[in-house]
Amino acid sequence: MKLYTFPGAPNPRRVHIYLAEKGLEIPFERVDIMKRENRRPEFMAKVNPLGGLPVLELDDGTHLAESVAICRYLEALHPEPPLFGRSAREQGMIEMWLRRLELYGMVPVGMVWIHGSPLTKAVVKRQIPEVADQYRQAVAQHYAFLDRELATREFIAGASFSMADILALCTIDFAAQLNGLPIPPDHAHLGRWHRSVSARPSASA
Amino acid sequence: MKLYTFPGAPNPRRVHIYLAEKGLEIPFERVDIMKRENRRPEFMAKVNPLGGLPVLELDDGTHLAESVAICRYLEALHPEPPLFGRSAREQGMIEMWLRRLELYGMVPVGMVWIHGSPLTKAVVKRQIPEVADQYRQAVAQHYAFLDRELATREFIAGASFSMADILALCTIDFAAQLNGLPIPPDHAHLGRWHRSVSARPSASA
Repeated sequence: MKLYTFPGAPNPRRVHIYLAEKGLEIPFERVDIMKRENRRPEFMAKVNPLGGLPVLELDDGTHLAESVAICRYLEALHPEPPLFGRSAREQGMIEMWLRRLELYGMVPVGMVWIHGSPLTKAVVKRQIPEVADQYRQAVAQHYAFLDRELATREFIAGASFSMADILALCTIDFAAQLNGLPIPPDHAHLGRWHRSVSARPSASA
Repeated sequence: MKLYTFPGAPNPRRVHIYLAEKGLEIPFERVDIMKRENRRPEFMAKVNPLGGLPVLELDDGTHLAESVAICRYLEALHPEPPLFGRSAREQGMIEMWLRRLELYGMVPVGMVWIHGSPLTKAVVKRQIPEVADQYRQAVAQHYAFLDRELATREFIAGASFSMADILALCTIDFAAQLNGLPIPPDHAHLGRWHRSVSARPSASA
């Protein structure tokens, strides 16, 4: 196995944190997103036609793209400790939260990134500042929702750390560090959760 | 168990097709999206704080939202026939496709729906026609991508029908019927796949 990745970027970071939580190591090849190496024709022809990172190359030559798909594949091979849930109920709840975090968190943050960041201006067809404004509000709503939910439990999807916490951490750090969207100081529960998961050794993976 | 649903809407339809493929029946309660019953304060307080459908009420009172999470929960209880894959490789590939279909298919179709449909004009803060145009192009790229991929295999994620085919069918039918985005006639492989999955008895569930 080999992981095509760019450590530090938000989606690759999910897999690096997952590997650290599992105590797994996989050799990796660095593909520089800033130099758009992931958009080169040979990378898109051979590794991922959509050009995204990370991608896991399996021993049979299959290329498995999408961060959560890579982690779910590894979870099937290495079930302990479970990060996608054990019982049917846990599996369902974690999947619910993965989808809520992706669709109501990372997608809006991505819209702010695409339409509002000076760093993407050169590669986006045309930035529409009003779109960035609309999605800044969506991210604020998402943060408020997470804060209310975290009032009643320790981690995003329940009493145990899971893949959902990894997704939330990577999304929020990306939003805070590169999109000017930090956790508001009055969101005490979300702030408490963020300090807790950021203190885990995996967070610096 | 009880399913809160609105049969015919694209996300609830995923669960109804899944149930038909599995031969499962679950009592359901109809929540009228057109009358915005899913946005009423009591529904949001009791069933889903985000107001989305479908939602599965478990016997312990837990509310499980998000179509794919509901199906994944049911899959853990009823593994046969597998619609999320059996081997680690199958599970990973199906998850990869679920995410590609959601993020590069349903999200752009949703943007066209929100920013370009007369049916959503009254409930959206402000439609931006240029956004609808940008995402119509993204949907066209997604169709072309699926057409190239389906040149080499029978179903979206491999040789067997899976949850990925359910997602793709519901997204494309929604795009075609309500957003003016039919499969282009020159996309022979995607057209062949669409006729094949539409002919399954589950498609009318």
